[in-house]
Amino acid sequence: MTDPQLTDGLRELLSAPNPCVMATLRKDGSPVSVATWYLLDDDRIRVNLDADRVRLQHLRRDPRVAMTILSAESWYSHVSIQGRVAEITDDPDLSGIDSLARHYTGEQYPVRDRARVDVRIDIERLHTWGDAAAL
Amino acid sequence: MTDPQLTDGLRELLSAPNPCVMATLRKDGSPVSVATWYLLDDDRIRVNLDADRVRLQHLRRDPRVAMTILSAESWYSHVSIQGRVAEITDDPDLSGIDSLARHYTGEQYPVRDRARVDVRIDIERLHTWGDAAAL
Repeated sequence: MTDPQLTDGLRELLSAPNPCVMATLRKDGSPVSVATWYLLDDDRIRVNLDADRVRLQHLRRDPRVAMTILSAESWYSHVSIQGRVAEITDDPDLSGIDSLARHYTGEQYPVRDRARVDVRIDIERLHTWGDAAAL
Repeated sequence: MTDPQLTDGLRELLSAPNPCVMATLRKDGSPVSVATWYLLDDDRIRVNLDADRVRLQHLRRDPRVAMTILSAESWYSHVSIQGRVAEITDDPDLSGIDSLARHYTGEQYPVRDRARVDVRIDIERLHTWGDAAAL
């Protein structure tokens, strides 16, 4: 589901290389969070994980995620998303992680010998604070 | 429980006015996250909420929380905490929220007519990335 609140202003904010924190659920249902790169990709959130990450097991077991994206300009402007994993796909040529690395660092991803996966997340709810609330 | 990994270096990092994202659990068990002020207070994490926040209902129902604290200097250095609410106390004179506001803004909290509560969170697990990993 594409959230109807995803305005052009929000798309623009979310398209910057912003700090982002993603929360997933452990087997016992407890939340766990970590900072992550993300891309807004066709109105979905895309992240890319090392295929051996515990976080990936979390996402396969329970697709519910929360993300808070802080504006790169001021973290008092932020967007929080509740979403659901729509698709997990292998990234055999590392083009997925490279697109994230280029977005954030301008360079391809330095680690070339680890399997990666792309995870696409549907935005189900979205809340905004600070300047983002006006977008 | 005080986490044995909370070294002096980590205490120093966590004592800065850093961006922080906190994840709680909704009634249906799904995670929800939001940016928040926090203070490291006697090796616990303290946050302060408007007494009418839905997030407070989450914390009363399920005390399990996750937090990711991004270093104010670079978000590539970050600390993620899994914790549990130890104590929820009223903040009738607003001294709790004022201590957070002064830490982040240098000023007392501007809103004086809303009930607030202090929430103290025990650190149960802690993971570090980037420069924080060396602390």
